[in-house]
Amino acid sequence: MSLDAFRGKRALVTGGAGFIGSNLAHRLRALGAGVTIVDAMIPDTGANRFNLEGLDAGFHALDLRDRDALRPLLAGQDLVFHMAGQVSHADSMRDPFQDLAANAEATLALLEECRRAIPRARILFAATRQQYGRPRYLPLDEAHPQEAVDVNGIHKRAAEEYCLLYHRVHGLRCSSLRLTNTYGPRQLWKHNRQGFIPWFIRLAMEGRPLQVFGGGEQRRDFSYVDDVVEAFLLLAGEEATVGEAYNLGGERPYTLNEFGSALFEACGGGTSTVVPFPPERKSIDIGDAYCTSEKLRQAVGWSPRVPLKEGLARTVAFYREHGDRYR
Amino acid sequence: MSLDAFRGKRALVTGGAGFIGSNLAHRLRALGAGVTIVDAMIPDTGANRFNLEGLDAGFHALDLRDRDALRPLLAGQDLVFHMAGQVSHADSMRDPFQDLAANAEATLALLEECRRAIPRARILFAATRQQYGRPRYLPLDEAHPQEAVDVNGIHKRAAEEYCLLYHRVHGLRCSSLRLTNTYGPRQLWKHNRQGFIPWFIRLAMEGRPLQVFGGGEQRRDFSYVDDVVEAFLLLAGEEATVGEAYNLGGERPYTLNEFGSALFEACGGGTSTVVPFPPERKSIDIGDAYCTSEKLRQAVGWSPRVPLKEGLARTVAFYREHGDRYR
Repeated sequence: MSLDAFRGKRALVTGGAGFIGSNLAHRLRALGAGVTIVDAMIPDTGANRFNLEGLDAGFHALDLRDRDALRPLLAGQDLVFHMAGQVSHADSMRDPFQDLAANAEATLALLEECRRAIPRARILFAATRQQYGRPRYLPLDEAHPQEAVDVNGIHKRAAEEYCLLYHRVHGLRCSSLRLTNTYGPRQLWKHNRQGFIPWFIRLAMEGRPLQVFGGGEQRRDFSYVDDVVEAFLLLAGEEATVGEAYNLGGERPYTLNEFGSALFEACGGGTSTVVPFPPERKSIDIGDAYCTSEKLRQAVGWSPRVPLKEGLARTVAFYREHGDRYR
Repeated sequence: MSLDAFRGKRALVTGGAGFIGSNLAHRLRALGAGVTIVDAMIPDTGANRFNLEGLDAGFHALDLRDRDALRPLLAGQDLVFHMAGQVSHADSMRDPFQDLAANAEATLALLEECRRAIPRARILFAATRQQYGRPRYLPLDEAHPQEAVDVNGIHKRAAEEYCLLYHRVHGLRCSSLRLTNTYGPRQLWKHNRQGFIPWFIRLAMEGRPLQVFGGGEQRRDFSYVDDVVEAFLLLAGEEATVGEAYNLGGERPYTLNEFGSALFEACGGGTSTVVPFPPERKSIDIGDAYCTSEKLRQAVGWSPRVPLKEGLARTVAFYREHGDRYR
């Protein structure tokens, strides 16, 4: 199915006020789909009303675990993009119960309601590279053992397993996409607990030094949010991907120092200092970690289109204009 | 450490009114340990006050998620045997939220309280062979991928991962034992949703025909509960097992038909009929499934002592005397 096929379709986006969810919602509207957004609007998460600025979509502030409120919103939906979730690894260790509720229980609630109300809908789940834990080999492929190093990884994996299980047992048309370090416009900027990328971007733009833990030679891959949105759309359109999980990797791995240099170039300057790992981060650090997207490429022809420098330039331009709405 | 070392130790047994928990509690008392039992006493689970008959132990009817009530019970405990859990695969598919609460959230609550109150206690977790899902090879060893085929397997795995993660990150002295089909005295007899073994024993003892799904040549392993209890005690005493998970397998695999024959011998007769799989069971059936206990044997010298026929004879004798308390 080409992206034209989204015209006239009805799509529910959970976590639609958050980073990836809102970018996806804007794109779906641009493709002519009807969009309904559900977001729990939990303080200190990526949920931001400004992310919905200029978007013609239904909006419901709703915890997915409130199944009675969720139920009527599902009727008639062709597509469900389940982007909602607690994504901070540090927060998952500090409050594992909140992470359990937001990632595991909320996903279970969504699937239970979908199998009753819209058993033929297409369901796409935003999973994470974090599920793999410390890499045993690189690049990570989908067959790599999943041994999470934090509570968040345990719960994201459980949520993905629900999706695949509900496909096998109840016939739900679910696919899962394991995301790596995603960056771009509309990402949370308020604190540094949702990954280092947006925080580094903010620090660099504000002329403050980046603190790089442990040397900066750790290699990671980076995905520009438009490429991630494209991958979700391509997956949604390809029936053969139902019941499967896919990695989404970057164009190539970069060291954190390389990332910093590219960022400074986009910002027109900057400084970084290398500091030792704080103990609570060291215990969950995984060293080099990057994925191959080969399975995804073969299934739907996806490959990243936006190189790191270009993506960072676009991101910096966005926050130059709108940064005040994210502080 | 020999089993003498349990004398004078204080042990908390969660799920202590259930099948394995109560057998463990009786054994701990016999070894001279002080025992405190916590059990949510959820109807239709294995919890049965009669299991505690003749046991000199503290008893608290308590959901582990009630952390305020749990906290004072932890003080001074040397050992925590976490046997509580929802164990019915069928029930986990019917009410996944209850399974999430009983297996995942309750375990998280216990670990969170342990790390604050008794960070040096020895913690033993009852995991399950079901975490592996459909075997890719046999016998199952601990490195086999974990791809659960039901909600229960997803949540038991998450609970085990919490234990191992809380060891790595918070230093809790946890070990996990993945149990297979356990049978013996004090097992639930009221319905057939907690595995086929106790139900088969009841049917055979009541002279009713066993219904064997799909031919009866599926191979499984069987553990007599005293052997399981012994394994938990040996693990608790061996510091080198901290942070590790172990399989507990049977003496050898038996087909369901062989199990039926051994059971009829113990009962002095019986009949079985082979019936096709009901669809909702077929979708989560895994075919042959049995484990190797080699890792456990090497770590603590455990091997099963009670052969199937002997175990069944003891079990039948128990229910002949006490069956009315389990109907």
